[in-house]
Amino acid sequence: MMEARRALFLVVLAAAAAAGLVAVVFVLKWVLHFREGLAWDGGPGEFNWHPVLMVIGFVVLQGTAIIVYRLPWTWHSSKQLMKFIHAGLNLLAFSLAVISVVAVFDFHNYAKIPNMYSLHSWVGLAVVVLYALQLVLGVFMYLIPVTPVSLRAAFMPLHVYTGLLLFTSVIGVALMGITEKLIFGLKDPKYKDSPPEAVFVNVLGVLLVVFGGLILWIATRTSWKRPSDQILHNLHTNVGGEDSTKVGPALSQLSEGNDAESSSDVRKRSSKMDYEAN
Amino acid sequence: MMEARRALFLVVLAAAAAAGLVAVVFVLKWVLHFREGLAWDGGPGEFNWHPVLMVIGFVVLQGTAIIVYRLPWTWHSSKQLMKFIHAGLNLLAFSLAVISVVAVFDFHNYAKIPNMYSLHSWVGLAVVVLYALQLVLGVFMYLIPVTPVSLRAAFMPLHVYTGLLLFTSVIGVALMGITEKLIFGLKDPKYKDSPPEAVFVNVLGVLLVVFGGLILWIATRTSWKRPSDQILHNLHTNVGGEDSTKVGPALSQLSEGNDAESSSDVRKRSSKMDYEAN
Repeated sequence: MMEARRALFLVVLAAAAAAGLVAVVFVLKWVLHFREGLAWDGGPGEFNWHPVLMVIGFVVLQGTAIIVYRLPWTWHSSKQLMKFIHAGLNLLAFSLAVISVVAVFDFHNYAKIPNMYSLHSWVGLAVVVLYALQLVLGVFMYLIPVTPVSLRAAFMPLHVYTGLLLFTSVIGVALMGITEKLIFGLKDPKYKDSPPEAVFVNVLGVLLVVFGGLILWIATRTSWKRPSDQILHNLHTNVGGEDSTKVGPALSQLSEGNDAESSSDVRKRSSKMDYEAN
Repeated sequence: MMEARRALFLVVLAAAAAAGLVAVVFVLKWVLHFREGLAWDGGPGEFNWHPVLMVIGFVVLQGTAIIVYRLPWTWHSSKQLMKFIHAGLNLLAFSLAVISVVAVFDFHNYAKIPNMYSLHSWVGLAVVVLYALQLVLGVFMYLIPVTPVSLRAAFMPLHVYTGLLLFTSVIGVALMGITEKLIFGLKDPKYKDSPPEAVFVNVLGVLLVVFGGLILWIATRTSWKRPSDQILHNLHTNVGGEDSTKVGPALSQLSEGNDAESSSDVRKRSSKMDYEAN
């Protein structure tokens, strides 16, 4: 049973890694083959760093940072080391996002295109600012030992929720960015004429959605958590209910059963109780 | 403590309701004041049903369907009744989405604009199709008593994940739709010149993101679940771990403590254990 769950995790992880890697290949082929390539001269080649660095940093590296605690081969490493890797990947993702934003402002200013007029830019800049806040708060609350444990614990659900919401918002902002660029960039034939570039970059957008969906699936499976974190999750949710006295008997039954029964037996029984209770 | 949690829930719920209602007012003002109004004649007035019905149905009604089990004043109603309301709201949201898609195809065909060329249309149609599948599977698995309880329980995490992912994707697709329409619809002044309509509809986009974020927050707070569902959640997560033997002692300690201690005492202690274990 444990092997089957591990195998399923590895399949989903491989699918996420494949979607992320193919997305990076696609965004590179987009700017190098279909567009003007890469440069840092205020021209279209500088703009092109924007999608490239956003896909690599804000999508793929951020997604990796989110699920880094889920990798079973890291469970023997210290939690502190994993926190450093989580924070480091997020810092790298943020740095690439900032360079990526500079590229597009530079390009706009050279080309006398206004900045910050689109919904893409509004939500995008809000995400960058909130991501910076999340990063600073995360470091001070969870990496540097200055915050009382009670505060750390109280804010962990918010840290997780904000992290997943910002990641999801990045995907949404990327979809708007792709839409804008295909409309503005394709003139003859236009976006609506479905030239090869349009179809190719639509597929890139779909890959980003698939990558996002897989990362969110991995991040929200309780049974795929680092073993020590699973216990914490259980403690959190057990005491969260307004009817914890009702939970009591069921829990004692379960914990008494742990030694005698296989976990799959317990699962079957609890699934049954699940729907009897409904 | 219970009153404080209830009050926090009501504040977040009121914020979500306000964001959703203001979004509906905004989309109506957009098409009635800034655009050509509403009609069913193949012209722009027919297109305008598309954003109106999507915001009302696929965003606000779907969001309401997602959190309907969380409303404390429904906890004395039968679960079966709440399932009917959940399914009914989703069916209504789906019906409005289908009419909304018909409106845009009609408009495209009259105006000789190609269909299904944009990333908006690709992801949007995928969401409509998967939403239909989710609805049919949901009715057969959870509403009509034909599915074995073990299957119902096994698929519940997938039902919840798919529901939240489809809702989130709808927001993302709406952001792409707003981007497209502002670029195509604003000619002189253009979108980049930030006329009042551009700013107004950008705000609509931000409202949709805020509404989505609040619905996801409400839906993912374990302690805001219907009391009977909280027990089930606990049973699910308790038996999901690969180290259930380790969970055992902590759980017995907790369940033994339930009668003697207030739930906030337990929460404090478990929060502390949380970070000692780290």
